[in-house]
Amino acid sequence: MNFSLLCKHLSRITFLIALTMVFSLPWAFPDIGGSAEFEYDGFFGLLGAMAIALFVSGLLWYFGKHAKGQLYRKEAMAIVGLSWMLATVLGAMPYLLSRTEMSPGRVMQVWDACFESQSGFSTTGATVLTNVQMEEGYALVPRSILFWRSSTHFLGGMGIIVLFVAILGQGSAGKTLMRSEIPGPTKEGPQTRMQHTAWIFATIYIVLTFALAIILGCCGLSWFDSLCTAFGTMATGGFSTYNDSVGHFSQLPNVGVTGALWAESFIMLFMVIAGTNFTLLYFVAIGKPLKLIKDVEWRTYIATLFVLTLLIVFFGYLHRDELFYTGSNFWPSFASGLRHSSFQVVSIMTTTGFSSGANFDAWNNFGRGMLLLLMFVGGCAGSTGGGLKVIRHIMFLNIIRLELEKAYHPTVVRPLRLGGHPVEDQNLRKNILVYFGLILVIFIFSWMFLITTEPDHTWIRGGTGAEHMDHKLIDCASSVAATLNNVGPGLGTVGPKYTYTHFTPQAKVLFIWLMMVGRLEIFAILVLFLPGFWRNH
Amino acid sequence: MNFSLLCKHLSRITFLIALTMVFSLPWAFPDIGGSAEFEYDGFFGLLGAMAIALFVSGLLWYFGKHAKGQLYRKEAMAIVGLSWMLATVLGAMPYLLSRTEMSPGRVMQVWDACFESQSGFSTTGATVLTNVQMEEGYALVPRSILFWRSSTHFLGGMGIIVLFVAILGQGSAGKTLMRSEIPGPTKEGPQTRMQHTAWIFATIYIVLTFALAIILGCCGLSWFDSLCTAFGTMATGGFSTYNDSVGHFSQLPNVGVTGALWAESFIMLFMVIAGTNFTLLYFVAIGKPLKLIKDVEWRTYIATLFVLTLLIVFFGYLHRDELFYTGSNFWPSFASGLRHSSFQVVSIMTTTGFSSGANFDAWNNFGRGMLLLLMFVGGCAGSTGGGLKVIRHIMFLNIIRLELEKAYHPTVVRPLRLGGHPVEDQNLRKNILVYFGLILVIFIFSWMFLITTEPDHTWIRGGTGAEHMDHKLIDCASSVAATLNNVGPGLGTVGPKYTYTHFTPQAKVLFIWLMMVGRLEIFAILVLFLPGFWRNH
Repeated sequence: MNFSLLCKHLSRITFLIALTMVFSLPWAFPDIGGSAEFEYDGFFGLLGAMAIALFVSGLLWYFGKHAKGQLYRKEAMAIVGLSWMLATVLGAMPYLLSRTEMSPGRVMQVWDACFESQSGFSTTGATVLTNVQMEEGYALVPRSILFWRSSTHFLGGMGIIVLFVAILGQGSAGKTLMRSEIPGPTKEGPQTRMQHTAWIFATIYIVLTFALAIILGCCGLSWFDSLCTAFGTMATGGFSTYNDSVGHFSQLPNVGVTGALWAESFIMLFMVIAGTNFTLLYFVAIGKPLKLIKDVEWRTYIATLFVLTLLIVFFGYLHRDELFYTGSNFWPSFASGLRHSSFQVVSIMTTTGFSSGANFDAWNNFGRGMLLLLMFVGGCAGSTGGGLKVIRHIMFLNIIRLELEKAYHPTVVRPLRLGGHPVEDQNLRKNILVYFGLILVIFIFSWMFLITTEPDHTWIRGGTGAEHMDHKLIDCASSVAATLNNVGPGLGTVGPKYTYTHFTPQAKVLFIWLMMVGRLEIFAILVLFLPGFWRNH
Repeated sequence: MNFSLLCKHLSRITFLIALTMVFSLPWAFPDIGGSAEFEYDGFFGLLGAMAIALFVSGLLWYFGKHAKGQLYRKEAMAIVGLSWMLATVLGAMPYLLSRTEMSPGRVMQVWDACFESQSGFSTTGATVLTNVQMEEGYALVPRSILFWRSSTHFLGGMGIIVLFVAILGQGSAGKTLMRSEIPGPTKEGPQTRMQHTAWIFATIYIVLTFALAIILGCCGLSWFDSLCTAFGTMATGGFSTYNDSVGHFSQLPNVGVTGALWAESFIMLFMVIAGTNFTLLYFVAIGKPLKLIKDVEWRTYIATLFVLTLLIVFFGYLHRDELFYTGSNFWPSFASGLRHSSFQVVSIMTTTGFSSGANFDAWNNFGRGMLLLLMFVGGCAGSTGGGLKVIRHIMFLNIIRLELEKAYHPTVVRPLRLGGHPVEDQNLRKNILVYFGLILVIFIFSWMFLITTEPDHTWIRGGTGAEHMDHKLIDCASSVAATLNNVGPGLGTVGPKYTYTHFTPQAKVLFIWLMMVGRLEIFAILVLFLPGFWRNH
């Protein structure tokens, strides 16, 4: 392991984090009606965090200034994993130093701050803050801290696209999954090629984010809300500046019902884009949209969104649940049902976790069950979306089908196909199975850990009340699913109307770990804990 | 495919089924206090079913009388799968012809009878009969029909041990899983060897069943109850002659509290034995008990039983739930808690499904969750127990561990080890992963099917009442788990106090399929539906 090279790269990333904090500072200045001291807390908290980040960056720069050698896969893995951990700790500093309150009187502890920070960087969007909006001139969380919270989404989404997809996704299996055949500078080394891809992806990501922010601004949102929502959307994160998330927009005087509908539609469109493979977005950008339309994964992704939306509307109508409670006439109810179910399906499948104001946990069990399963599907590979990715599911089902055929016909060897083309990589078949196995093992053990260690008073303190205690099994399963797949909201006590604030510290530490492992697709994190990884061979 | 050979073997099995029905006939004669007509129903129902079975057997004998050629793996698979289906249909005849009532006034329909029959043959023990015991001289189900119901367990357990383990378990992967290195007559073909193993296994199975029946008789149970309970135990089935299963024994005048405790202990011991690999039981029988004690799978199996019992007692005490509600003193409560939790853990892990009178669904969520997961573990390979088998879990975790190591060290190839010895079969690694994948796919799709198609009134009609509707997601998951793993009782509406009687016909058909697929470890059933399987190559 080339440690000085590691330090050099980590120093750069730490510097980037410190730099991003600057952009949160200005939001402390405008008077929001609360006490001035309160906004000072956010300001000085951010300044202190910046100082710490700069110090760490300087220290790393010092150790890495004589770095030599090339970036191999092993170093790249270590950089991705370690920078994620470092970012989580540094990102937690503003919350801690500003002494932000989760609910009146309850100041964030180390695990709460790390949870919120990890949830931001991993673009999960699960929160421990029970009240983020200003009510009657009073707010719990300073605006600058809220902006920093959304900025972690932006940084995290960028990290995924640049560090994880463009750099780690260059292996042969990675290429099959991400289909990242971006034409780069020829006759150059793999490192230049990686950098080229990374720049392209970063540009697409930034342009799309600010495009959405401008669109939302035109819909009537303030620049603060527009930027924060855009960060949450393109990163498939889900942190919002309102307790009711996107559902609150219609109550803002400048937005109104029509503006909120436009904003909702654009957010939905950009969530779909954020869940699309960035390689395909690149091809659309250079005028080859056919590549997108012909892609098997993208087609399956879009088809799943459509079919599930219609099914949920159908079953919502059949069970006459909340989704359809908006009026006695059929068509207005149907339109509203379609609006909420499509938004919620897109939001959960892309693992964003925004809420259109509809509480999907109160829907019928078909909708609840499907959304729970959808969390494991996630977006396309090479996107900012979490979950297991659509392509893995396509391949998994193909492998299972081929193996069934083999049971009676053991001599015939058929290649694994993806959209008619055989997939070359020989190890891919086993790797997909192992990946599903790993997710299953992590899911089952985390679920067991939660139901074992989480006491009853978590449910009593939670918003759902004590009678929801009976639902512990499914609530625990959904909170593990929602964090492991970087979705955010789940069912029951972690439903769209509630937060993660009432969980015990050990549960929060588990969630932090799950969000990180899920985000970096397991291996980049788990290998860091194996001693053999750090030895020189 | 050699069809006449197929017919010849199926004819034998059908004849065996007809023969077994004879033993249920005598139980129609003793007066049980009900109306004489009522017992006649059972008697003539069985006679009719026998006639049909004999006719089918004759027909098959006619088509198979000129059978030639050897029994290859493909034919063996077809025999196992088809005989299972044939047995289900023939086994349903006595219920249908005797017009047995599930609850007062509700006569069993085709799907109910097939469900009960499949549940018997697959040694699941899930029932649609809401009342099987005699109350105040009145009974719903004739005794002869009850005896036939338990006989299907006996036949099913035998079928698993003889057809499935001894005959299909002779492949190289099968040998690794079952470790069936029984010394057979040398210098003979594989068919003679199979027959030799089959005879040994059948003898062990029959001797153990009747040994338990005699022991239970000594505890004070009637011969009827003793035999039925012994059939249910050694087959890891779970059908009982009382609504409260084993928990009712203490109320019988001849048994009493002490007798019931003895009976319970012996049933527990024999459940543990029934969940043990029959190859190991053979070695114990010929005086080599060390083979049993040194076996990795058996050790893990026993350790799991011990650890989980203690944990459930601990958490039961911590949450002070029903398990501990027997008195105000600590030690008597502890003893009762230990008794019920050990019985329930053994009953669920071996996939028997007997109940000691304790309603495990009313325990705390740790106990409920662990028992739900335990259903997927099941007994040892080569036993009558269902589930995925302990050995598959050991290997699965080993494979996942090896693959994690490979992530940072791709060049080193390590063999898969089982108890220190490398496992030779190269395909085993992939096969284990595929098996877990298949179970996952079947579980998820069945769960989705149930939550989609099962209407709310299933929960309203069920014993739990309408307020349990909120638990649809977990209830559906547990009913799929309980049938796929051949356990029987699950959580909520299929809990130990309730039955499967209130499910819709389509759900019952799904359960029938799940029980069959789970019992025959997927492939033996699924390949029958692939057209390529029936072609001659």
